Formats: sequence, structure tokens, C-alpha cells
Amino acid sequence: MREILQEIKQVIDNVDVTIISYVDEEGYPISKAMLKPRKVEDLKVFWFSTNTSSNKVKSFRNNSKASIYFFDKSTFKGVSIKGNVEVIDTKSVKESIWQDGDLLYYSKGVEDPDYCVLKFIVDKYRYYSNFKSIDINVKDM
Amino acid sequence: MREILQEIKQVIDNVDVTIISYVDEEGYPISKAMLKPRKVEDLKVFWFSTNTSSNKVKSFRNNSKASIYFFDKSTFKGVSIKGNVEVIDTKSVKESIWQDGDLLYYSKGVEDPDYCVLKFIVDKYRYYSNFKSIDINVKDM
Repeated sequence: MREILQEIKQVIDNVDVTIISYVDEEGYPISKAMLKPRKVEDLKVFWFSTNTSSNKVKSFRNNSKASIYFFDKSTFKGVSIKGNVEVIDTKSVKESIWQDGDLLYYSKGVEDPDYCVLKFIVDKYRYYSNFKSIDINVKDM
Repeated sequence: MREILQEIKQVIDNVDVTIISYVDEEGYPISKAMLKPRKVEDLKVFWFSTNTSSNKVKSFRNNSKASIYFFDKSTFKGVSIKGNVEVIDTKSVKESIWQDGDLLYYSKGVEDPDYCVLKFIVDKYRYYSNFKSIDINVKDM
């Protein structure tokens, strides 16, 4: 198990785009590319920064069901993670993942009303490698 | 409109991975990388080959709601398309998108029971470019 989690961590670290998926108001699954997670806690919680005005934030406020997907084209390895998203806009949390370059996107800084945080809480992993897949429940990690 | 559709077509042609999303039996949106579509009809219908035994085929048989997503990392342009998927396993359709290299994945050829076709029928486009998005309904195309 430890070796597989190590491989999963490598895929996540190597890939520079995260695909995040939500269910929209009509029940359709929608995917969007995001920058790498700002923080990953023990492969169980992922933190992202995003725009408060985005469709995904509106959708996650109604339906927390989500997945994130990391796909390495060069090795054809993929990590698909099911979980739930909390939209967080408290100042302390926003400060904890703020980076200097963010001023480019959020000109008013940490308190920019269009800046918020997505906390993705893992439920299950599916790891794809060599045309096989392995499922891992977060409870077994 | 014609210029935007031309740009959308370019993004789809340039990207070598399609992200396809479905809703699983627990209501979670799940995404998966696929090879390029085998055939695109007038930007309104997309055809893919896939494994009959895959989770996405099982899910699409229960819930046809889907999206496909093409993301060009080099230009940060993205095309997100909402629609519905039909799983098709009639021989004539399977033959129509079969390619020689497919024997590598489906050793029994066109009639391999693990080979089937996804027909994705477009409902709406969302095109992301220069940090803006444009929505296009298939009825207006």
C-alpha cells in the first residue's frame, strides 16, 4: 500500500494541471482545468484557490460532490479522486494559501471578494497504471 | 460566430487528449482521459471508441448526461461541451470508426465484446479564451 500511495503522490506532483469536476444545476458533470493544489495534507485533503464568481463555486455551494483528476500523458498514469468540496471564504484560511503572484488574479489581495478557497476532502482513490486500476478507500490509508 | 467556431475547432484538433465526464451510481462527477474522437460531425456529434467493461460505459447506460473537455495548456484555451452519450454496439457503427491499430486493444477485432462506441450528442458549448467565456447553444450553430 505504501508503494502505491508513493506512486500516486508522484503522479500528483508531476502533473501541472488538475481537472476538477462538479455537477451543474441541470445534473450534468462538468470539468475544468485548475492550477496545482496549493496544499495537500497527507493525500486526504487538497486545497485550491479559485474565483468566487466561477460556475464551479456556484455549483459546489449546491452540491458538494466532486472529483479531481491528475493525468500524466507521458506515462499514461492517472489518479481519479472522489470526494466533497467545501467553499471557504474566511480570511484566515484564505491567508493560509495565499501566494505573492496571486495579486495578478485578485487585485485586492487576500480580501478580494472574487478570491476564495476550495477544500476537497477525499473519499476514494482510483489509480490507473499499465491499463489496470486499483481502488483505495480513504479509511484504509 | 463562424470565427469562434473555427477557433473551437482548432483547439479540439490541437489537443491529443479528451476529458470525458459522467455521473457515477453515487451521483459523483467522474472524469477520464480518452484518445481523440474518432469522428466529429459538424461540431455537433462526437464519436469515440472505448471498452464495454469500463465504468463510464456502465454509468452512461444509466445516465446519459455527459461533458467532454478539450484544454490547450500552451494557450490556456478550453472547450467544454455539455451533451448526452449513447452507448452503441451495433456492428455497422463499430465498423465505421474502426482503425487498424485497434487490434492492439481489441484482439478479436470489430466484434470484440469489449469494444463499443460512444456517440456524444452536443447540447451546449462553453469556450474559454483570454480569461473570458462564451456560451453557444447547438441550436444557434
